[in-house]
Amino acid sequence: MANPLPPGSTIGIIGGGQLGRMLAMAAARLSYRTIILEPQADCPASQVANRQIVAAYDDAGALAELADACDVVTYEFENVPVDAAERLDEAVSVFPPPYALEVSQDRLVEKTFLNDIGVPTARFAAIDDDAALARELAAMGGKGVLKTRRMGYDGKGQLVLDNPANLAGTFAAMGGVPLILEQFVPFEREISVIAIRDQDTNLACYEPAVNVHRNGILHTSTVPGGVSLEEADAAYINAGMILESLDYVGVIGVEFFVLADGSLLVNEIAPRVHNSGHWTEAACAVSQFDNHIRAVAGLPVGSTGRHSDAVMENLIGDDIDRVPALAAENDMMIHLYGKAEARPGRKMGHFTRIAPRQT
Amino acid sequence: MANPLPPGSTIGIIGGGQLGRMLAMAAARLSYRTIILEPQADCPASQVANRQIVAAYDDAGALAELADACDVVTYEFENVPVDAAERLDEAVSVFPPPYALEVSQDRLVEKTFLNDIGVPTARFAAIDDDAALARELAAMGGKGVLKTRRMGYDGKGQLVLDNPANLAGTFAAMGGVPLILEQFVPFEREISVIAIRDQDTNLACYEPAVNVHRNGILHTSTVPGGVSLEEADAAYINAGMILESLDYVGVIGVEFFVLADGSLLVNEIAPRVHNSGHWTEAACAVSQFDNHIRAVAGLPVGSTGRHSDAVMENLIGDDIDRVPALAAENDMMIHLYGKAEARPGRKMGHFTRIAPRQT
Repeated sequence: MANPLPPGSTIGIIGGGQLGRMLAMAAARLSYRTIILEPQADCPASQVANRQIVAAYDDAGALAELADACDVVTYEFENVPVDAAERLDEAVSVFPPPYALEVSQDRLVEKTFLNDIGVPTARFAAIDDDAALARELAAMGGKGVLKTRRMGYDGKGQLVLDNPANLAGTFAAMGGVPLILEQFVPFEREISVIAIRDQDTNLACYEPAVNVHRNGILHTSTVPGGVSLEEADAAYINAGMILESLDYVGVIGVEFFVLADGSLLVNEIAPRVHNSGHWTEAACAVSQFDNHIRAVAGLPVGSTGRHSDAVMENLIGDDIDRVPALAAENDMMIHLYGKAEARPGRKMGHFTRIAPRQT
Repeated sequence: MANPLPPGSTIGIIGGGQLGRMLAMAAARLSYRTIILEPQADCPASQVANRQIVAAYDDAGALAELADACDVVTYEFENVPVDAAERLDEAVSVFPPPYALEVSQDRLVEKTFLNDIGVPTARFAAIDDDAALARELAAMGGKGVLKTRRMGYDGKGQLVLDNPANLAGTFAAMGGVPLILEQFVPFEREISVIAIRDQDTNLACYEPAVNVHRNGILHTSTVPGGVSLEEADAAYINAGMILESLDYVGVIGVEFFVLADGSLLVNEIAPRVHNSGHWTEAACAVSQFDNHIRAVAGLPVGSTGRHSDAVMENLIGDDIDRVPALAAENDMMIHLYGKAEARPGRKMGHFTRIAPRQT
């Protein structure tokens, strides 16, 4: 049995956005103190944390200070520099393991890892010039999605291609950085599961959410969303294989495409709490944030059962002006992120409508 | 319609204990910033707040600073000095209204107020010497509870009397402070309701909880607990009369004795979020903390419906050692308060078991 951190222990969180904020609140609910490492002062997470170290994620002095002050360190986003996480891990436990960062930071490494452990993905190829792009796109039947291998999120750094002609200059237009071409997948819908593995290697999974995106950003997650038992089982099995192969501790988000025949392909994995799991706060006794903190603190994973049906919707930019009207609706949980400025495309909050469980 | 505070506005909270802590987290979930006024540094509330002013509740400079920095001020306990709240209220809105403090700080004033507005209580009398005590106790049939008029909580400052003889020295033994004698009520059970009134005078009430105390401290709150519809209606009506009479804004806790014939007497009112309402965090889309912040911020009161059955239990002192075992149970929401030292009788946290709604 893992030895749980006693109340009053300190959890470091790298990254100060809304996910770090919700993790800090979950940590507080278990009497853990939190220190946020984040270069932006007064970030969303630090507003509810005990302390913030204002420094870059790879600042050696800051990392040493964090290791010294914390009993365990976790992170809220997958682009934490792997070097920094590995250096930290020599001084203090880092969960999820830094190897999970390495795998998920590069789409080519990620998809190669997934296929190697038997988890299916769309066909893909590394692209390092226009000639390779033309050749691979043709081999994929002329339709594909070209993505930067690193640092893409919310649909940024992506280009949908459906014509193998006239590709000259595309590599340069994407920034001249290493790219990956993924075969276009005629999916019926996108689903995701939020899975957890604790320090005693217990696994748990929330029910799959059906996700709808707008402009490349998650718009809604719906549970239940008509996912068949077979599809849900396939999602759980794939998530479990990923967690085991990574010797993972914490929450992971795994996104899938569901094809017309009901088969699943993994789209991507996120080694952290995930936007498509925000519904768990409204519809479960133990949210994804609570379960992540439990796992990194050495407590047992909590139940992932759902007491209600739920639809989570993101509030993007000016959507935050909808809050007073939303607050007047029944069975409505609203969660905002403390961001000062409502820029277009910026995630300002989310809300979850719950309803009595029907299935 | 009230004009809701925009996101980023600042809410002052007087008092830095667990109730202030949970209010600060609820405020953060609505993108409000919080400043805690509390003399104890690094108090439970400040750990999740944007800022703490470390000063006495009646420190004139601190109150001026709080008024200056906040868009609205609320409080987490009923013993905030009335003078301080009134002075603040001249500079910044204070909710609930300071008059609610005045009424609830003195048991004699409270019970007189309740009877004046038609809300029934046990028979009571002011006691200022042993002679009055002997006379009134005899008039009440020889059984009563003697309490300090002010500053009692969790059963402190109370004495159960069942013998009108040998009372000499009792007044001095109670500290020589103004007392109240309340007739002993042979109640069947204790229930409480958490009620809310928003700035547009909308009222709402959570279902009554059935409360069990141990050593004068709340042990469990159970919903549903076998409260009849008639009893619940009487509780709602009494709570509504209290909120209207106080021109109240925010959450109030109202404790009742239920007698054998099903009639209700109010035991006491608490002009704040209440321990017996902690179950709402686990079993409702909108918790008592969320609803209190909504009310003080000018947002509409949220639904008080319950999606699950719930039993909340307090973790007192060493009970906090039960957390790892509790965490392994299903459908268990755990909430701890960030207190460093587990002293006997100290509320360290609570947990709520939920179960599918049966009624």
